[in-house]
Amino acid sequence: MALHSTLAALSLATVSDENALPTKTVIFKPKTAKTAVPVPVVVFALHSTQTPSGAIAKAAGVKEPRLAKDDLIQEFFNVSSQEVSIAHFDKSLAGKIKIVLDQKIASANDDEILEISTVSEKAQLTAGQIKGFLKQTGIELIETDFSAEVVKEASPAPAGDSKKDQLKKEKEAAKLEDAKLIGITVDKAKDFSNWYSQVVVKGEMLDYYDVSGCYILRPNSYAVWEEIQDWFNIEIKKLGVQNSYFPMFVSAKVLEKEKDHIEGFAPEVAWVTRAGSSELDEHIAIRPTSETVMYPYYAKWIRSHRDLPLKLNQWNSVVRWEFKHPQPFLRTREFLWQEGHTAHLTKDEATTEVTQILDLYARIYEELLAVPVVKGKKTENEKFAGGDYTTTVEGFIAATGRGIQGATSHHLGQNFSKMFNIAVENPDGSDKPKVFAYQNSWGLSTRVIGVMVMTHSDNKGLVLPPRVAQTQAVVIPVGVTKNSSEADRTAINGGAADIEKRLKHAGIRATSDFRDIYTSGWKFADWELKGTPLRLEFGPKDLAQEQVTAVRRDNNQKYTVKLGELESRIAEILQEMQVGLLEKARKDFDTHRVIVEDWKDFVPTLNAKNVILAPWCGDADCEDEIKDASSKKDDGEDEDVDEKAPSMGAKSLCIPDAQPALKADQKCVRCDKKAVTYCMFGRSY
Amino acid sequence: MALHSTLAALSLATVSDENALPTKTVIFKPKTAKTAVPVPVVVFALHSTQTPSGAIAKAAGVKEPRLAKDDLIQEFFNVSSQEVSIAHFDKSLAGKIKIVLDQKIASANDDEILEISTVSEKAQLTAGQIKGFLKQTGIELIETDFSAEVVKEASPAPAGDSKKDQLKKEKEAAKLEDAKLIGITVDKAKDFSNWYSQVVVKGEMLDYYDVSGCYILRPNSYAVWEEIQDWFNIEIKKLGVQNSYFPMFVSAKVLEKEKDHIEGFAPEVAWVTRAGSSELDEHIAIRPTSETVMYPYYAKWIRSHRDLPLKLNQWNSVVRWEFKHPQPFLRTREFLWQEGHTAHLTKDEATTEVTQILDLYARIYEELLAVPVVKGKKTENEKFAGGDYTTTVEGFIAATGRGIQGATSHHLGQNFSKMFNIAVENPDGSDKPKVFAYQNSWGLSTRVIGVMVMTHSDNKGLVLPPRVAQTQAVVIPVGVTKNSSEADRTAINGGAADIEKRLKHAGIRATSDFRDIYTSGWKFADWELKGTPLRLEFGPKDLAQEQVTAVRRDNNQKYTVKLGELESRIAEILQEMQVGLLEKARKDFDTHRVIVEDWKDFVPTLNAKNVILAPWCGDADCEDEIKDASSKKDDGEDEDVDEKAPSMGAKSLCIPDAQPALKADQKCVRCDKKAVTYCMFGRSY
Repeated sequence: MALHSTLAALSLATVSDENALPTKTVIFKPKTAKTAVPVPVVVFALHSTQTPSGAIAKAAGVKEPRLAKDDLIQEFFNVSSQEVSIAHFDKSLAGKIKIVLDQKIASANDDEILEISTVSEKAQLTAGQIKGFLKQTGIELIETDFSAEVVKEASPAPAGDSKKDQLKKEKEAAKLEDAKLIGITVDKAKDFSNWYSQVVVKGEMLDYYDVSGCYILRPNSYAVWEEIQDWFNIEIKKLGVQNSYFPMFVSAKVLEKEKDHIEGFAPEVAWVTRAGSSELDEHIAIRPTSETVMYPYYAKWIRSHRDLPLKLNQWNSVVRWEFKHPQPFLRTREFLWQEGHTAHLTKDEATTEVTQILDLYARIYEELLAVPVVKGKKTENEKFAGGDYTTTVEGFIAATGRGIQGATSHHLGQNFSKMFNIAVENPDGSDKPKVFAYQNSWGLSTRVIGVMVMTHSDNKGLVLPPRVAQTQAVVIPVGVTKNSSEADRTAINGGAADIEKRLKHAGIRATSDFRDIYTSGWKFADWELKGTPLRLEFGPKDLAQEQVTAVRRDNNQKYTVKLGELESRIAEILQEMQVGLLEKARKDFDTHRVIVEDWKDFVPTLNAKNVILAPWCGDADCEDEIKDASSKKDDGEDEDVDEKAPSMGAKSLCIPDAQPALKADQKCVRCDKKAVTYCMFGRSY
Repeated sequence: MALHSTLAALSLATVSDENALPTKTVIFKPKTAKTAVPVPVVVFALHSTQTPSGAIAKAAGVKEPRLAKDDLIQEFFNVSSQEVSIAHFDKSLAGKIKIVLDQKIASANDDEILEISTVSEKAQLTAGQIKGFLKQTGIELIETDFSAEVVKEASPAPAGDSKKDQLKKEKEAAKLEDAKLIGITVDKAKDFSNWYSQVVVKGEMLDYYDVSGCYILRPNSYAVWEEIQDWFNIEIKKLGVQNSYFPMFVSAKVLEKEKDHIEGFAPEVAWVTRAGSSELDEHIAIRPTSETVMYPYYAKWIRSHRDLPLKLNQWNSVVRWEFKHPQPFLRTREFLWQEGHTAHLTKDEATTEVTQILDLYARIYEELLAVPVVKGKKTENEKFAGGDYTTTVEGFIAATGRGIQGATSHHLGQNFSKMFNIAVENPDGSDKPKVFAYQNSWGLSTRVIGVMVMTHSDNKGLVLPPRVAQTQAVVIPVGVTKNSSEADRTAINGGAADIEKRLKHAGIRATSDFRDIYTSGWKFADWELKGTPLRLEFGPKDLAQEQVTAVRRDNNQKYTVKLGELESRIAEILQEMQVGLLEKARKDFDTHRVIVEDWKDFVPTLNAKNVILAPWCGDADCEDEIKDASSKKDDGEDEDVDEKAPSMGAKSLCIPDAQPALKADQKCVRCDKKAVTYCMFGRSY
């Protein structure tokens, strides 16, 4: 009970208020000469306030503030980074640290309730108590209006607008949401990263976790994953694939057997070195992928050509300890996926399967998630290390104009089978050379959920495609007021309950919201935030006319549905919405996949948030050069969110299966060589 | 390619033969004075030969041989334990090591093909080459007939039998199986541990893995797990439970928050300390269970009584790095399970759910796996650390007379909610004290598969209950010989294929076996080994009479089924078998659950392979005393297999819900105090 006991020791009284505004306390270490004593900068802000490092630097007058490491925090506050809060500040720190104070806190009324939290505790106090306490410590307090800074960073003000006008407009836009209560506080178009983070958290898809790079998949997102699992399991079983489970651990020796393969993963492998209090004799890796876990046993099990094909899949989690900035669903240190590993007697059989699986991946994106993808082949630079070739489905995030790899299906050729001795006697006779198996591996991860969220969601929150939504329709009784008669109330609530029941019976995932402490408007916003595809309003007029009013989450379209045809119409509307989402997203992708033949158009087209289809020579060096030449210093994204972004050049995304016709004398978009194919390039996740 | 290159360097020619007999090379270090130079004993034997340490000790004339550690192996053979093989022996080792040679190898014909393997490679050589090579190294070779030793260890010969008679009988019994080819080579009743290990491996349920204590779940077992998942998901969703996924990692601080709880797990926690080449600042644990992973977020999400109940479940793997001897499915360092964690406003609601879940667990055992269980409550000694009470389903392995914990459903009370501050405002008013949530957690693991295998399987291999079998029926064409006409062959194969198709269409998981290189008898044995519930034989007579002959795996009962009623009859027979398996197992359990009121009968009853229902005072010290007093030095099991077994006393298994009537003046079975309940005691897994 460290937080509460510390507060008690400081004689700070806590209150209990479930609507308290959450705050955050974040410690930064500015760049200083190595010999200088660092002066940590503490940001104390509302949890919902975006606090980019640029704004902190400016406010505190320091250079390049970076998140402080645990040892620094221990040194100054005598507590770990997870437990630190303003309750650990005292007079001894005056002159040694600076506090950057969110103006929203500074200007709060004294009786507003704020919530201070550590990783495991929270406490509510009045703003007056907190501000008084901070002042009496004597630590330098720097009030900062982060919202002004954020807007400035995100999109430079047009020449004609004063900073003030710009601010006003931004605030106007934000007003649409009841930000303090539940809603999204930033605009998808203006601050995509913050918007995304808010949508996934407030939409209850995911929560941040106290081990960096790991996230909690809450039921609202896990249900999407279950829908994908159920569908994919049926399809792969038709292809003769069986599910199985291999251990998460792999010995160093086995992991490192295939050199090309391991090179790609080695820097990200997590190692278990201790169990209880015993050091392990041999350190053990957690699988980053399971080729080397599985293939020694393929060698053991495959004795004869009659044991082929061997087709196994597993649903598991893998760990890649990336040091890049993590991002929910897209770049996480542990993630869920399926990995299929198959071994075949002939190359033909193997390569046919590579395509069958890629088609299934495309269908998961398009049919289930309503996300359009482009199927194609990775270049040599971008293929899976150790394999022969990699096929891929590539998506597109319209809001940022970046491409995103969707899922990959690899043909490994005989590289692994030769390394692991997965071989059978030649079916043509034992005098012939033995045959090494032709292998594939293919995987699709929970990243698909991130792509889905980025594609469809908006400033009101999540938008879930009906096909994968945990709840497809929510029935909300409306028009019941304090003045309504008991009979009316009973009739409307009863009617709403009946609608829910009928829909469930028809196999539609329905629920209803009878919480009487909230207004209808609040409920609408709450269900919109969570992405529920259809809202069904049932009020006095609907009761009288034997109908219900259905409202689509994606475009707010209203439908009056007669109760006589409830089940069939709701199913139709859900289907319309599913199709509509895909069409809209496909139009976005198609519009922003631009053919560029002249290099001079390349970067401007990228900067206009497009991906590019360009004639290309196929040369790996040229590909590297395109990446270098298209990188730029600032693409308008917050550097805090993805340090890779500012200088990001265009990668080759894939060589699409669907190729525009190539003119006979067409040159490569970058070099003087003859083009051999169209390749899709783009900035990417 | 260490093995092959070493063999090549020794000029040992390899051959290619998929029917080669696998061998094993195992290095032991005998007990020696610390100052003495150890003389490792190498056992080189057929893989199928059981080589208990007692037999090795006797053959080599050494004391307590134990598996050699890696450093010793490195020192002598300059290679790791996973790569060592006889190919690493040379003249320099003469006088420094001893080889105990399996007599089956010593007496093999020179042209028999043996297979040498390391963790990742295998090579086939003739027995002649191998024996010649071993002789020329000059290392002491000790031929040993392990089968004689094993029999002697497993069951002392009755007074009237000479050792020779005993051996002959044993061999007679083993003859039933075609051991060399595919079958089980030991008797369930005589060497249970070895039998179990063979059944799970040869039945393709599981394979051993090169990281100790971890196993591969092959499709034949994973399919059972999927059936359980599908069934349980439907049932818990009816109770309002949602699935989710929490990270596998947990920081030390959070893990150690609940002291009682962590004490039970600390010695078994696996720690990640390094990622790539970077040491981590803070070491991170892999979850042994997720109470402390999840509850900080329950505290965050649960703001109001309207957020209760919160009911989440996850299907994941957890890691408990036990140092006891691992056992497939039953004691593994990583295992799959589901863990449900729920929080409720009232104790009543929580305790009702504890029972609902326990009932579901009992149904998984009884309805799906055909394994009878006894429902009950754990004693204070045996309950889940940190919880209020633990309910359990307890199974029974008739072959060993031991109890086995099946799955547990815990009521945690408010212990965790107070620790993690999972609390809401009192619904009766904010002036009343806040209410800490009442919590439950409940889990069922892949251990269920092990219990199922131990219960039903026999000396022909696995027996799978139809309800969970990946393949429920296999159609095998019979009576087609070299002399059969092409027309007959076509008619029979066509008829078999048609049967398979019709069954599949009716939702029965059917397959057929048209492999023409094997005899029908071989196929029968192969499918029996894999546990397929029904074999359907279709031959000329069946063709003529429009019927198929069905044979049940469990009791060999034959049924003649008219093709006109194929689908309905096969479904009925499968159902009969499902019921039959449960009835037989229940009879075993009921017969071997014996009421004992006098202490003098306690140990003899245990030794007769029973569990005991005894009147008990309820005192924890008395429980400990029962355990001590009932332990014995030798219960006939191989100490290599489970070092815990030889001295194992009777634990309290549970206080069964179904209680015999307790006499008014009944005393405790052990002490003089008054009995308060009947408790089930037994040796256990």
